[in-house]
Amino acid sequence: MARTIQSVERAAALLRLLAGGERRLGLSDIASAMGLAKATAHGLLRTLQREGFVEQDERSGKYQLGAELLRLGNSYLDVHELRARALVWTDDLARASGESAYLGVLHHGGVLLVHHVFRPDDSRQVLEIGALLPLHCTALGKVLSAYDPVAHSELAELELTAVTDRTVTDRAELEKELVRVRDRGWAGDLGGTWEGVASIAAPVFDRRRMPVGAVAVTGAVERMTVAGGAADGELSPRLIAAVRDCARSVSRDLGAGRF
Amino acid sequence: MARTIQSVERAAALLRLLAGGERRLGLSDIASAMGLAKATAHGLLRTLQREGFVEQDERSGKYQLGAELLRLGNSYLDVHELRARALVWTDDLARASGESAYLGVLHHGGVLLVHHVFRPDDSRQVLEIGALLPLHCTALGKVLSAYDPVAHSELAELELTAVTDRTVTDRAELEKELVRVRDRGWAGDLGGTWEGVASIAAPVFDRRRMPVGAVAVTGAVERMTVAGGAADGELSPRLIAAVRDCARSVSRDLGAGRF
Repeated sequence: MARTIQSVERAAALLRLLAGGERRLGLSDIASAMGLAKATAHGLLRTLQREGFVEQDERSGKYQLGAELLRLGNSYLDVHELRARALVWTDDLARASGESAYLGVLHHGGVLLVHHVFRPDDSRQVLEIGALLPLHCTALGKVLSAYDPVAHSELAELELTAVTDRTVTDRAELEKELVRVRDRGWAGDLGGTWEGVASIAAPVFDRRRMPVGAVAVTGAVERMTVAGGAADGELSPRLIAAVRDCARSVSRDLGAGRF
Repeated sequence: MARTIQSVERAAALLRLLAGGERRLGLSDIASAMGLAKATAHGLLRTLQREGFVEQDERSGKYQLGAELLRLGNSYLDVHELRARALVWTDDLARASGESAYLGVLHHGGVLLVHHVFRPDDSRQVLEIGALLPLHCTALGKVLSAYDPVAHSELAELELTAVTDRTVTDRAELEKELVRVRDRGWAGDLGGTWEGVASIAAPVFDRRRMPVGAVAVTGAVERMTVAGGAADGELSPRLIAAVRDCARSVSRDLGAGRF
Protein backbone atom coordinates (compact mmCIF):
# COMPACT_ATOMS: atom_id res chain seq x y z
CA MET A 1 0.00 0.00 0.00
CA ALA A 2 0.98 3.64 0.31
CA ARG A 3 4.54 4.05 1.49
CA THR A 4 6.04 7.24 2.85
CA ILE A 5 7.76 9.53 0.37
CA GLN A 6 11.46 10.10 0.96
CA SER A 7 11.74 13.58 -0.55
CA VAL A 8 8.79 14.82 1.54
CA GLU A 9 10.38 13.35 4.66
CA ARG A 10 13.63 15.09 3.78
CA ALA A 11 11.81 18.38 3.21
CA ALA A 12 10.22 18.04 6.67
CA ALA A 13 13.60 17.23 8.23
CA LEU A 14 15.10 20.30 6.54
CA LEU A 15 12.38 22.54 7.99
CA ARG A 16 12.94 21.03 11.44
CA LEU A 17 16.65 21.70 11.07
CA LEU A 18 15.96 25.37 10.28
CA ALA A 19 13.52 25.59 13.21
CA GLY A 20 16.10 24.57 15.82
CA GLY A 21 19.48 25.84 16.88
CA GLU A 22 21.10 28.20 14.40
CA ARG A 23 18.01 28.95 12.31
CA ARG A 24 19.98 30.60 9.52
CA LEU A 25 22.07 28.08 7.64
CA GLY A 26 24.10 27.97 4.44
CA LEU A 27 23.78 25.27 1.80
CA SER A 28 26.91 23.41 2.94
CA ASP A 29 25.80 23.37 6.60
CA ILE A 30 22.40 22.03 5.60
CA ALA A 31 23.80 19.36 3.28
CA SER A 32 26.28 18.13 5.88
CA ALA A 33 23.80 18.26 8.79
CA MET A 34 21.37 16.15 6.76
CA GLY A 35 23.98 13.84 5.25
CA LEU A 36 22.91 14.77 1.71
CA ALA A 37 24.83 15.67 -1.41
CA LYS A 38 24.85 19.42 -2.01
CA ALA A 39 22.88 19.07 -5.25
CA THR A 40 20.16 17.10 -3.45
CA ALA A 41 19.96 19.64 -0.61
CA HIS A 42 19.87 22.47 -3.16
CA GLY A 43 16.98 20.86 -5.02
CA LEU A 44 15.02 20.60 -1.77
CA LEU A 45 15.81 24.19 -0.78
CA ARG A 46 14.90 25.53 -4.21
CA THR A 47 11.55 23.76 -4.13
CA LEU A 48 10.77 24.81 -0.56
CA GLN A 49 11.78 28.37 -1.41
CA ARG A 50 9.42 28.49 -4.39
CA GLU A 51 6.59 27.26 -2.15
CA GLY A 52 7.33 29.94 0.49
CA PHE A 53 8.43 27.44 3.17
CA VAL A 54 12.02 28.67 3.07
CA GLU A 55 13.50 32.12 2.47
CA GLN A 56 17.02 33.04 1.47
CA ASP A 57 18.67 36.05 3.05
CA GLU A 58 19.93 38.24 0.21
CA ARG A 59 23.02 39.47 1.95
CA SER A 60 24.36 36.29 3.52
CA GLY A 61 22.84 33.76 1.11
CA LYS A 62 21.73 31.75 4.15
CA TYR A 63 18.41 29.98 4.37
CA GLN A 64 15.71 30.40 7.01
CA LEU A 65 12.07 29.38 7.48
CA GLY A 66 9.51 31.07 5.21
CA ALA A 67 6.31 33.03 5.68
CA GLU A 68 4.03 30.33 4.27
CA LEU A 69 4.58 28.37 7.50
CA LEU A 70 3.10 31.23 9.50
CA ARG A 71 0.06 31.33 7.24
CA LEU A 72 -0.45 27.55 7.46
CA GLY A 73 0.11 27.60 11.23
CA ASN A 74 -2.64 30.19 11.50
CA SER A 75 -4.95 28.01 9.40
CA TYR A 76 -4.19 25.10 11.71
CA LEU A 77 -5.41 27.18 14.65
CA ASP A 78 -8.58 28.12 12.76
CA VAL A 79 -9.77 24.51 12.64
CA HIS A 80 -8.61 23.63 16.14
CA GLU A 81 -11.84 22.67 17.90
CA LEU A 82 -10.33 22.52 21.40
CA ARG A 83 -8.82 25.97 20.98
CA ALA A 84 -12.07 27.43 19.65
CA ARG A 85 -13.98 26.06 22.63
CA ALA A 86 -11.34 27.28 25.07
CA LEU A 87 -11.07 30.91 23.84
CA VAL A 88 -13.71 32.39 26.09
CA TRP A 89 -12.88 30.26 29.12
CA THR A 90 -9.14 30.98 29.07
CA ASP A 91 -9.97 34.67 28.67
CA ASP A 92 -12.10 34.47 31.80
CA LEU A 93 -9.32 32.55 33.55
CA ALA A 94 -6.79 35.31 32.83
CA ARG A 95 -9.23 37.92 34.14
CA ALA A 96 -10.19 35.94 37.24
CA SER A 97 -6.58 35.08 38.11
CA GLY A 98 -4.90 38.26 36.96
CA GLU A 99 -2.22 36.06 35.37
CA SER A 100 -1.34 34.71 31.90
CA ALA A 101 -3.48 31.78 30.77
CA TYR A 102 -2.41 29.02 28.40
CA LEU A 103 -3.87 26.10 26.52
CA GLY A 104 -1.46 23.30 25.59
CA VAL A 105 -1.65 20.03 23.69
CA LEU A 106 0.73 17.10 23.37
CA HIS A 107 3.00 17.38 20.34
CA HIS A 108 6.21 15.51 19.51
CA GLY A 109 7.19 14.78 23.10
CA GLY A 110 6.39 18.27 24.33
CA VAL A 111 3.55 20.66 25.12
CA LEU A 112 2.58 22.86 22.18
CA LEU A 113 0.97 26.12 23.27
CA VAL A 114 -2.10 26.63 21.06
CA HIS A 115 -3.49 29.58 22.98
CA HIS A 116 -2.07 32.27 25.22
CA VAL A 117 -4.01 35.04 26.93
CA PHE A 118 -1.87 37.90 28.19
CA ARG A 119 -1.90 38.85 31.85
CA PRO A 120 -4.56 41.57 32.08
CA ASP A 121 -2.33 44.47 33.02
CA ASP A 122 -0.46 47.04 30.99
CA SER A 123 2.85 45.19 30.90
CA ARG A 124 4.65 44.30 27.67
CA GLN A 125 4.30 40.57 27.03
CA VAL A 126 5.56 38.22 24.33
CA LEU A 127 3.11 35.94 22.62
CA GLU A 128 4.01 32.29 23.09
CA ILE A 129 1.53 30.55 20.79
CA GLY A 130 3.41 27.86 18.86
CA ALA A 131 6.11 27.43 21.50
CA LEU A 132 6.98 23.86 22.49
CA LEU A 133 7.54 23.34 26.25
CA PRO A 134 9.16 20.33 27.94
CA LEU A 135 6.88 17.64 29.39
CA HIS A 136 8.82 16.87 32.57
CA CYS A 137 9.19 20.26 34.20
CA THR A 138 6.09 22.29 33.31
CA ALA A 139 2.70 22.14 35.02
CA LEU A 140 1.04 21.63 31.60
CA GLY A 141 3.48 18.82 30.75
CA LYS A 142 2.95 17.08 34.08
CA VAL A 143 -0.82 17.16 33.62
CA LEU A 144 -0.54 15.68 30.12
CA SER A 145 1.96 13.04 31.31
CA ALA A 146 -0.27 12.11 34.25
CA TYR A 147 -3.47 11.73 32.22
CA ASP A 148 -2.47 10.87 28.65
CA PRO A 149 -0.82 7.44 28.23
CA VAL A 150 0.76 8.58 24.95
CA ALA A 151 2.36 11.56 26.73
CA HIS A 152 3.48 9.27 29.54
CA SER A 153 5.23 6.91 27.16
CA GLU A 154 6.83 9.85 25.32
CA LEU A 155 8.05 11.13 28.68
CA ALA A 156 9.71 7.76 29.31
CA GLU A 157 11.86 8.33 26.20
CA LEU A 158 12.97 11.82 27.20
CA GLU A 159 15.98 12.87 29.17
CA LEU A 160 15.00 14.72 32.36
CA THR A 161 17.25 17.74 31.98
CA ALA A 162 17.59 20.24 34.82
CA VAL A 163 16.20 23.49 33.43
CA THR A 164 16.56 25.20 36.82
CA ASP A 165 17.88 24.13 40.23
CA ARG A 166 14.34 23.10 41.14
CA THR A 167 13.62 20.87 38.14
CA VAL A 168 12.84 17.28 39.18
CA THR A 169 15.31 15.10 37.26
CA ASP A 170 14.89 11.87 39.21
CA ARG A 171 12.51 9.62 37.30
CA ALA A 172 11.09 7.84 40.37
CA GLU A 173 10.40 11.17 42.03
CA LEU A 174 8.72 12.49 38.87
CA GLU A 175 6.51 9.37 38.68
CA LYS A 176 5.44 9.93 42.30
CA GLU A 177 4.63 13.51 41.40
CA LEU A 178 2.46 12.29 38.47
CA VAL A 179 0.52 9.99 40.83
CA ARG A 180 -0.08 13.02 43.06
CA VAL A 181 -1.26 15.00 40.00
CA ARG A 182 -3.84 12.32 39.18
CA ASP A 183 -4.92 12.09 42.84
CA ARG A 184 -5.68 15.75 43.25
CA GLY A 185 -6.58 16.59 39.65
CA TRP A 186 -4.05 19.34 38.93
CA ALA A 187 -0.32 19.94 38.59
CA GLY A 188 1.81 22.73 40.01
CA ASP A 189 5.26 24.01 39.27
CA LEU A 190 7.30 26.28 41.53
CA GLY A 191 10.35 27.48 39.69
CA GLY A 192 11.04 24.18 37.92
CA THR A 193 10.76 25.77 34.46
CA TRP A 194 11.87 29.34 35.08
CA GLU A 195 13.40 30.75 38.25
CA GLY A 196 10.77 32.68 40.19
CA VAL A 197 7.87 31.61 37.99
CA ALA A 198 5.03 29.39 39.18
CA SER A 199 2.36 27.59 37.21
CA ILE A 200 -0.83 25.62 37.85
CA ALA A 201 -2.42 23.34 35.23
CA ALA A 202 -5.48 21.10 34.97
CA PRO A 203 -6.58 18.57 32.33
CA VAL A 204 -9.24 19.03 29.63
CA PHE A 205 -11.28 16.02 28.55
CA ASP A 206 -13.40 15.42 25.46
CA ARG A 207 -16.75 13.69 25.08
CA ARG A 208 -15.09 10.28 25.28
CA ARG A 209 -13.40 11.40 28.53
CA MET A 210 -10.02 11.31 26.81
CA PRO A 211 -7.44 13.90 27.94
CA VAL A 212 -7.00 16.23 24.95
CA GLY A 213 -5.09 19.12 26.46
CA ALA A 214 -4.49 21.21 29.54
CA VAL A 215 -5.06 24.78 30.70
CA ALA A 216 -2.73 26.70 32.97
CA VAL A 217 -1.99 30.01 34.59
CA THR A 218 1.58 31.16 34.99
CA GLY A 219 3.00 34.07 36.96
CA ALA A 220 5.52 35.35 39.47
CA VAL A 221 5.94 33.03 42.47
CA GLU A 222 5.21 35.97 44.79
CA ARG A 223 1.71 36.42 43.30
CA MET A 224 0.93 32.73 42.79
CA THR A 225 1.64 31.51 46.32
CA VAL A 226 0.18 31.97 49.79
CA ALA A 227 2.13 34.35 52.02
CA GLY A 228 2.29 33.60 55.73
CA GLY A 229 0.40 31.12 57.91
CA ALA A 230 0.62 27.33 57.77
CA ALA A 231 0.39 27.23 53.96
CA ASP A 232 3.17 29.80 53.45
CA GLY A 233 4.81 29.34 50.04
CA GLU A 234 2.18 26.92 48.71
CA LEU A 235 0.31 27.55 45.47
CA SER A 236 -2.78 29.69 45.99
CA PRO A 237 -5.99 27.62 46.48
CA ARG A 238 -7.93 30.45 44.81
CA LEU A 239 -5.82 30.13 41.65
CA ILE A 240 -5.98 26.33 41.71
CA ALA A 241 -9.78 26.55 41.85
CA ALA A 242 -9.83 29.05 38.97
CA VAL A 243 -7.69 26.81 36.74
CA ARG A 244 -9.75 23.71 37.54
CA ASP A 245 -13.01 25.61 36.93
CA CYS A 246 -11.68 26.67 33.54
CA ALA A 247 -10.59 23.12 32.61
CA ARG A 248 -14.02 21.77 33.61
CA SER A 249 -15.80 24.42 31.57
CA VAL A 250 -13.76 23.68 28.44
CA SER A 251 -14.30 19.94 28.95
CA ARG A 252 -18.06 20.42 29.26
CA ASP A 253 -18.00 22.54 26.11
CA LEU A 254 -16.27 19.63 24.36
CA GLY A 255 -19.07 17.31 25.46
CA ALA A 256 -17.47 15.68 28.50
CA GLY A 257 -19.92 14.71 31.25
CA ARG A 258 -20.04 16.64 34.52
CA PHE A 259 -17.30 15.73 36.95
CA MET B 1 21.37 21.88 -12.04
CA ALA B 2 18.94 21.45 -9.18
CA ARG B 3 15.38 21.06 -10.36
CA THR B 4 12.31 21.32 -8.19
CA ILE B 5 11.00 18.13 -6.65
CA GLN B 6 7.53 17.08 -7.71
CA SER B 7 6.51 15.23 -4.55
CA VAL B 8 7.52 18.20 -2.38
CA GLU B 9 5.54 20.53 -4.64
CA ARG B 10 2.55 18.21 -4.33
CA ALA B 11 2.92 18.11 -0.54
CA ALA B 12 2.91 21.92 -0.47
CA ALA B 13 -0.15 22.04 -2.73
CA LEU B 14 -1.92 19.58 -0.43
CA LEU B 15 -1.22 21.77 2.61
CA ARG B 16 -2.50 24.83 0.73
CA LEU B 17 -5.63 22.89 -0.18
CA LEU B 18 -6.25 22.06 3.49
CA ALA B 19 -5.58 25.71 4.47
CA GLY B 20 -8.33 27.10 2.25
CA GLY B 21 -12.06 26.56 1.93
CA GLU B 22 -13.31 23.39 3.59
CA ARG B 23 -10.23 22.68 5.71
CA ARG B 24 -11.35 19.17 6.63
CA LEU B 25 -11.24 16.88 3.62
CA GLY B 26 -11.52 13.16 2.93
CA LEU B 27 -9.04 11.19 0.84
CA SER B 28 -11.29 11.14 -2.24
CA ASP B 29 -11.88 14.91 -2.11
CA ILE B 30 -8.16 15.53 -1.82
CA ALA B 31 -7.24 13.14 -4.65
CA SER B 32 -9.84 14.62 -6.99
CA ALA B 33 -9.08 18.25 -6.09
CA MET B 34 -5.41 17.64 -6.82
CA GLY B 35 -5.92 15.45 -9.88
CA LEU B 36 -3.99 12.58 -8.31
CA ALA B 37 -4.62 8.85 -8.04
CA LYS B 38 -5.94 7.91 -4.60
CA ALA B 39 -2.84 5.82 -3.83
CA THR B 40 -0.57 8.78 -4.63
CA ALA B 41 -2.62 11.14 -2.48
CA HIS B 42 -2.66 8.58 0.33
CA GLY B 43 1.13 8.24 0.23
CA LEU B 44 1.47 12.01 0.54
CA LEU B 45 -1.05 12.21 3.38
CA ARG B 46 0.56 9.36 5.25
CA THR B 47 3.99 10.97 5.04
CA LEU B 48 2.69 14.41 6.02
CA GLN B 49 0.78 12.86 8.90
CA ARG B 50 3.88 11.13 10.23
CA GLU B 51 5.75 14.43 10.12
CA GLY B 52 2.95 16.22 12.02
CA PHE B 53 1.97 18.46 9.08
CA VAL B 54 -1.42 16.78 8.69
CA GLU B 55 -3.79 15.26 11.26
CA GLN B 56 -6.61 12.82 10.69
CA ASP B 57 -9.85 13.26 12.60
CA GLU B 58 -10.60 9.94 14.29
CA ARG B 59 -14.35 10.14 13.98
CA SER B 60 -14.76 11.34 10.41
CA GLY B 61 -11.49 10.03 8.96
CA LYS B 62 -11.02 13.46 7.36
CA TYR B 63 -7.68 15.20 7.13
CA GLN B 64 -6.76 18.66 8.41
CA LEU B 65 -3.58 20.67 8.97
CA GLY B 66 -1.27 19.47 11.76
CA ALA B 67 0.36 21.01 14.83
CA GLU B 68 3.90 20.95 13.44
CA LEU B 69 2.91 23.87 11.18
CA LEU B 70 2.11 25.98 14.23
CA ARG B 71 5.48 25.17 15.78
CA LEU B 72 7.35 25.98 12.55
CA GLY B 73 5.31 29.16 12.05
CA ASN B 74 6.37 30.25 15.52
CA SER B 75 10.01 29.52 14.67
CA TYR B 76 9.62 31.61 11.53
CA LEU B 77 8.54 34.56 13.68
CA ASP B 78 11.51 34.05 16.00
CA VAL B 79 14.00 34.81 13.22
CA HIS B 80 11.97 37.61 11.64
CA GLU B 81 14.26 40.62 11.95
CA LEU B 82 11.63 43.19 10.91
CA ARG B 83 9.18 41.83 13.47
CA ALA B 84 11.80 41.79 16.24
CA ARG B 85 12.65 45.42 15.53
CA ALA B 86 8.99 46.43 15.38
CA LEU B 87 7.81 44.80 18.64
CA VAL B 88 8.43 47.76 20.92
CA TRP B 89 7.35 50.39 18.39
CA THR B 90 4.03 48.74 17.54
CA ASP B 91 3.39 48.30 21.26
CA ASP B 92 3.90 52.03 21.71
CA LEU B 93 1.67 52.68 18.69
CA ALA B 94 -1.20 50.70 20.22
CA ARG B 95 -0.81 52.60 23.50
CA ALA B 96 -0.53 56.01 21.84
CA SER B 97 -3.47 55.43 19.51
CA GLY B 98 -5.65 53.33 21.80
CA GLU B 99 -6.28 51.04 18.81
CA SER B 100 -5.00 47.68 17.50
CA ALA B 101 -1.62 47.86 15.79
CA TYR B 102 -0.38 45.57 13.02
CA LEU B 103 2.78 44.80 11.11
CA GLY B 104 2.32 43.28 7.66
CA VAL B 105 4.61 41.99 4.91
CA LEU B 106 3.98 41.03 1.29
CA HIS B 107 3.31 37.31 0.87
CA HIS B 108 1.79 35.46 -2.08
CA GLY B 109 -0.23 38.39 -3.44
CA GLY B 110 -1.52 39.45 -0.04
CA VAL B 111 -0.49 41.05 3.25
CA LEU B 112 0.65 38.57 5.86
CA LEU B 113 0.20 39.87 9.41
CA VAL B 114 3.42 39.08 11.28
CA HIS B 115 2.55 41.06 14.39
CA HIS B 116 -0.62 42.23 16.08
CA VAL B 117 -0.89 44.26 19.27
CA PHE B 118 -4.29 44.22 20.89
CA ARG B 119 -6.21 47.43 21.49
CA PRO B 120 -5.22 48.42 25.03
CA ASP B 121 -8.60 48.05 26.67
CA ASP B 122 -10.32 45.17 28.41
CA SER B 123 -12.22 43.94 25.37
CA ARG B 124 -12.00 40.38 24.08
CA GLN B 125 -9.94 40.33 20.88
CA VAL B 126 -8.89 37.65 18.43
CA LEU B 127 -5.26 37.35 17.50
CA GLU B 128 -4.69 37.80 13.77
CA ILE B 129 -1.01 36.92 13.37
CA GLY B 130 -0.64 34.68 10.31
CA ALA B 131 -3.77 36.01 8.62
CA LEU B 132 -3.46 36.94 4.93
CA LEU B 133 -5.28 40.14 3.95
CA PRO B 134 -6.09 41.34 0.43
CA LEU B 135 -3.77 43.89 -1.20
CA HIS B 136 -6.36 46.04 -2.94
CA CYS B 137 -8.72 47.00 -0.12
CA THR B 138 -6.64 47.24 3.05
CA ALA B 139 -4.52 50.20 4.16
CA LEU B 140 -1.56 47.84 4.65
CA GLY B 141 -2.06 46.38 1.18
CA LYS B 142 -2.32 49.80 -0.45
CA VAL B 143 0.92 50.93 1.18
CA LEU B 144 2.75 47.81 0.00
CA SER B 145 1.26 48.14 -3.51
CA ALA B 146 2.23 51.82 -3.66
CA TYR B 147 5.84 51.35 -2.56
CA ASP B 148 6.88 47.81 -3.46
CA PRO B 149 7.11 47.13 -7.23
CA VAL B 150 6.72 43.38 -6.59
CA ALA B 151 3.47 44.00 -4.67
CA HIS B 152 2.29 46.31 -7.42
CA SER B 153 2.84 43.71 -10.12
CA GLU B 154 1.12 41.06 -7.97
CA LEU B 155 -1.80 43.46 -7.54
CA ALA B 156 -2.06 43.71 -11.34
CA GLU B 157 -2.73 39.95 -11.46
CA LEU B 158 -5.46 40.02 -8.81
CA GLU B 159 -9.17 40.45 -9.24
CA LEU B 160 -10.45 43.52 -7.40
CA THR B 161 -13.35 41.92 -5.55
CA ALA B 162 -15.81 44.06 -3.63
CA VAL B 163 -15.40 43.04 0.00
CA THR B 164 -17.81 45.78 1.15
CA ASP B 165 -19.88 48.44 -0.63
CA ARG B 166 -16.99 50.85 -0.18
CA THR B 167 -14.24 48.68 -1.70
CA VAL B 168 -12.60 50.32 -4.72
CA THR B 169 -12.93 47.78 -7.55
CA ASP B 170 -12.10 50.06 -10.47
CA ARG B 171 -8.46 49.58 -11.40
CA ALA B 172 -7.89 53.14 -12.66
CA GLU B 173 -9.37 54.55 -9.49
CA LEU B 174 -7.19 52.27 -7.38
CA GLU B 175 -4.07 53.34 -9.29
CA LYS B 176 -4.96 56.99 -8.63
CA GLU B 177 -5.32 56.11 -4.95
CA LEU B 178 -1.86 54.50 -4.95
CA VAL B 179 -0.34 57.68 -6.44
CA ARG B 180 -2.02 59.60 -3.60
CA VAL B 181 -0.55 57.12 -1.09
CA ARG B 182 2.96 57.74 -2.43
CA ASP B 183 2.39 61.50 -2.46
CA ARG B 184 1.38 61.79 1.15
CA GLY B 185 3.31 58.81 2.56
CA TRP B 186 0.45 56.84 4.10
CA ALA B 187 -2.70 54.92 3.13
CA GLY B 188 -6.14 55.02 4.68
CA ASP B 189 -9.17 52.80 4.50
CA LEU B 190 -12.67 53.75 5.55
CA GLY B 191 -14.88 50.69 5.55
CA GLY B 192 -13.37 49.17 2.39
CA THR B 193 -12.34 45.97 4.21
CA TRP B 194 -14.93 45.70 6.96
CA GLU B 195 -18.05 47.80 7.39
CA GLY B 196 -17.52 50.41 10.06
CA VAL B 197 -13.81 49.73 10.44
CA ALA B 198 -11.11 52.22 9.48
CA SER B 199 -7.37 51.74 9.09
CA ILE B 200 -4.26 53.85 8.56
CA ALA B 201 -0.95 52.39 7.34
CA ALA B 202 2.56 53.64 6.57
CA PRO B 203 5.58 51.99 4.93
CA VAL B 204 8.67 50.58 6.65
CA PHE B 205 12.01 50.77 4.82
CA ASP B 206 15.26 48.92 5.41
CA ARG B 207 18.83 50.16 5.22
CA ARG B 208 18.76 49.99 1.42
CA ARG B 209 15.59 52.11 1.51
CA MET B 210 13.58 49.17 0.16
CA PRO B 211 9.97 48.88 1.38
CA VAL B 212 9.96 45.74 3.53
CA GLY B 213 6.61 45.99 5.28
CA ALA B 214 3.99 48.32 6.68
CA VAL B 215 2.54 49.21 10.07
CA ALA B 216 -1.09 50.10 10.68
CA VAL B 217 -3.70 50.90 13.27
CA THR B 218 -7.25 49.67 12.83
CA GLY B 219 -10.40 50.55 14.75
CA ALA B 220 -14.01 51.63 14.68
CA VAL B 221 -14.67 54.43 12.15
CA GLU B 222 -16.23 56.50 14.95
CA ARG B 223 -12.96 56.57 16.90
CA MET B 224 -10.63 56.83 13.91
CA THR B 225 -12.20 59.86 12.23
CA VAL B 226 -12.65 63.53 12.98
CA ALA B 227 -16.14 64.47 14.18
CA GLY B 228 -17.55 67.86 13.13
CA GLY B 229 -15.91 70.85 11.49
CA ALA B 230 -14.49 71.05 7.99
CA ALA B 231 -12.68 67.70 8.29
CA ASP B 232 -15.79 65.83 9.52
CA GLY B 233 -15.48 62.12 8.70
CA GLU B 234 -11.82 62.27 7.68
CA LEU B 235 -9.17 60.07 9.27
CA SER B 236 -7.73 61.59 12.43
CA PRO B 237 -4.48 63.56 11.84
CA ARG B 238 -3.33 62.55 15.32
CA LEU B 239 -3.60 58.84 14.41
CA ILE B 240 -1.96 59.39 11.02
CA ALA B 241 0.98 61.04 12.75
CA ALA B 242 1.22 58.18 15.28
CA VAL B 243 1.32 55.54 12.53
CA ARG B 244 3.90 57.45 10.51
CA ASP B 245 6.05 58.01 13.60
CA CYS B 246 5.96 54.28 14.29
CA ALA B 247 6.88 53.38 10.69
CA ARG B 248 9.80 55.84 10.78
CA SER B 249 11.05 54.45 14.08
CA VAL B 250 10.99 50.86 12.82
CA SER B 251 12.72 51.96 9.61
CA ARG B 252 15.46 53.70 11.56
CA ASP B 253 15.88 50.61 13.70
CA LEU B 254 16.35 48.63 10.48
CA GLY B 255 19.10 51.04 9.45
CA ALA B 256 17.21 53.30 7.06
CA GLY B 257 18.42 56.90 6.98
CA ARG B 258 16.37 59.68 8.51
CA PHE B 259 13.51 60.91 6.35
